[in-house]
Amino acid sequence: MRILILGGDGYLGWPTAMHLSARGHDVAVVDNYLRRNMAREQNVEALMPNPNLHERVAAWEEVSGRKIDCFIGDCGDYRFLSGVFQEWHPDTVVHYAEQPSAPYSMIDDVTARLTLLNNLGATFNVIWAVHEFAPECHVVKLGTMGEYGTPNIDIEEGWIEIEHKGRKGRFLYPRQTGSLYHTTKIMDTDMLWFYVRMWGLRVTDLMQGPVYGLMTDETEQDERLMPNFHYDDIFGTLLNRFLVQAAVGHPLTVYGKGGQTRGYLNLRDTLACVELSANQPAASGELRIFNQFTELFSVNELAEKVQRVGNGMGLNVKIKPIENPRKEPEDHYYNANYTGLLELGLEPHFLTDEVLGGMLEEVIRYKERIDRNKIMPRVRW
Amino acid sequence: MRILILGGDGYLGWPTAMHLSARGHDVAVVDNYLRRNMAREQNVEALMPNPNLHERVAAWEEVSGRKIDCFIGDCGDYRFLSGVFQEWHPDTVVHYAEQPSAPYSMIDDVTARLTLLNNLGATFNVIWAVHEFAPECHVVKLGTMGEYGTPNIDIEEGWIEIEHKGRKGRFLYPRQTGSLYHTTKIMDTDMLWFYVRMWGLRVTDLMQGPVYGLMTDETEQDERLMPNFHYDDIFGTLLNRFLVQAAVGHPLTVYGKGGQTRGYLNLRDTLACVELSANQPAASGELRIFNQFTELFSVNELAEKVQRVGNGMGLNVKIKPIENPRKEPEDHYYNANYTGLLELGLEPHFLTDEVLGGMLEEVIRYKERIDRNKIMPRVRW
Repeated sequence: MRILILGGDGYLGWPTAMHLSARGHDVAVVDNYLRRNMAREQNVEALMPNPNLHERVAAWEEVSGRKIDCFIGDCGDYRFLSGVFQEWHPDTVVHYAEQPSAPYSMIDDVTARLTLLNNLGATFNVIWAVHEFAPECHVVKLGTMGEYGTPNIDIEEGWIEIEHKGRKGRFLYPRQTGSLYHTTKIMDTDMLWFYVRMWGLRVTDLMQGPVYGLMTDETEQDERLMPNFHYDDIFGTLLNRFLVQAAVGHPLTVYGKGGQTRGYLNLRDTLACVELSANQPAASGELRIFNQFTELFSVNELAEKVQRVGNGMGLNVKIKPIENPRKEPEDHYYNANYTGLLELGLEPHFLTDEVLGGMLEEVIRYKERIDRNKIMPRVRW
Repeated sequence: MRILILGGDGYLGWPTAMHLSARGHDVAVVDNYLRRNMAREQNVEALMPNPNLHERVAAWEEVSGRKIDCFIGDCGDYRFLSGVFQEWHPDTVVHYAEQPSAPYSMIDDVTARLTLLNNLGATFNVIWAVHEFAPECHVVKLGTMGEYGTPNIDIEEGWIEIEHKGRKGRFLYPRQTGSLYHTTKIMDTDMLWFYVRMWGLRVTDLMQGPVYGLMTDETEQDERLMPNFHYDDIFGTLLNRFLVQAAVGHPLTVYGKGGQTRGYLNLRDTLACVELSANQPAASGELRIFNQFTELFSVNELAEKVQRVGNGMGLNVKIKPIENPRKEPEDHYYNANYTGLLELGLEPHFLTDEVLGGMLEEVIRYKERIDRNKIMPRVRW
């Protein structure tokens, strides 16, 4: 299969590209280094050095003997993106090409506008490029579990049947989020659903939870193939921040009460979910939505896990709740379904103490590069 | 009250400005002539000549003795829009400043992109300008009943309580539309709801049905004060098209089966709804949503009304179903609630034969300006 990966330089994009390449697919990556540029501008660069995308592709060929095609450009530029479609003829396009940070989207009007226009502009162009130049191409779009927020009823997989005043209807599950970034993902879903109905596109929308992990069958073969690792307040995930804090002896900063519960998954499982979706595509005119995570954890549960694993490695890990910089429920009902990807064949990798210990060891290897000034929240909303 | 009207040159914006000015409010209008420019580019200019916005404001002052301030510029340009807020200090902003045509949004990728970026860019800037420079300002936003589409359950006013697996939650009523234009209005609602929750904005989102009519207490005072009247396939409404067809002896073109049912309202009632909303603003942190229409009609019912009224005026009006150029249900359940504005004090003006006859007479006065080439649908989706 010919698989085009938009945002192929990202934390998920690059490991996905290698994973699919290793399994015999023809792969091309597209990126404009937006995340790298934003991270440099905000002075929050990744913990480990990452070669640029051309260098990554070359290193992958050296290690695996397999070629990945590489296009540097902006998916928000239709002339560029439609050119890639016309030149490369994908069967599947994996769309990761969005500004990925909730805090970044909340800094000021400039970063908010960039998030809105970049994310919707890219998704719009993907839709049009598929429609005009690859109408049978299956779009695998990365959404987020954050689209649903934390509703008081069970979260279903994308859709809900509502019974109201004696009648029934099937609808997109109602969505409401906690950041402008997440709101742009709701808008993406609205737009995809519209064009799926109008044009019979094939779309799989993956409502993904926060991803953790550095190691995959491919990344562990060569240090140059590692994905980026952000621990800062802008691009870092909760678990990465806790690991870095444990490594440098900083108390784990739980935001507020720590009851915030989300669905998490291992990086290996993200790759598997994308591959399973690509291999069993959505039908023409179908917006297929999966909830993509494997385990639910609260912030407190993750802090306790990191503390236990860190202490087991001889660290002295403390937990210290701090004022929540975000407007979000800290104690809420949360029950989300996630059977679709398991039915497609996903075999989850869970967040064991061993997995966590492996990540912590990796972070400790780069301990001298950790900047403690980037750990505490600076963006408030 | 100081009321700023964005899109003040539009079919609704200009009559709203005069209506509120006549009732003693301080009014300013903002427009960049986007709709006029698009109409000229598509060769579908309005039936009657309309003076430009400066000329309209001057004519209104001549007729009424009241001044309306006028700013020509693009609400998508934050420097311009935030400048207007800082200079003019509105208590209420009425946001009509969007590309208003469903067919225009479906012509090609250029018009679709313009619709997406223009509409979301304007709404985003309104949100930020209010947040930064007028945090107590009440935003009255024009949405559309089209956001809901034609669901198989009753349409509530913006919100729905869902009971699911023994638990309950209140959500934005699920939305799914029939054009990209309407989809941008869903996205507007998503974005407004996000920032209302984050920043405590005051927002009234008016889910308006198609509006008809030319005459208000103000427009009927002077021909120069009349709103624009589009009958073409891009900017024209269904009823306007039928009236023009009746006037020139063209069969009324019902799209498909004609069972498409929508909520309609008189132009006078739009003005009243906006005024009622402005006078009784939403609370801080409230996204108040009203369904804004007064009567439900199917396409066939409207065709029959126009036929009856036209024949009563000595015309020989035929009805001729044609292939539907749009992808939409032609026969569907439709039951929408609309009590909120009645409770605020709305006294509806209904679509009587007299009202319809008055509009038809006005159209006949301009009969020689009607271009029959602009009547039939050219945009298909």
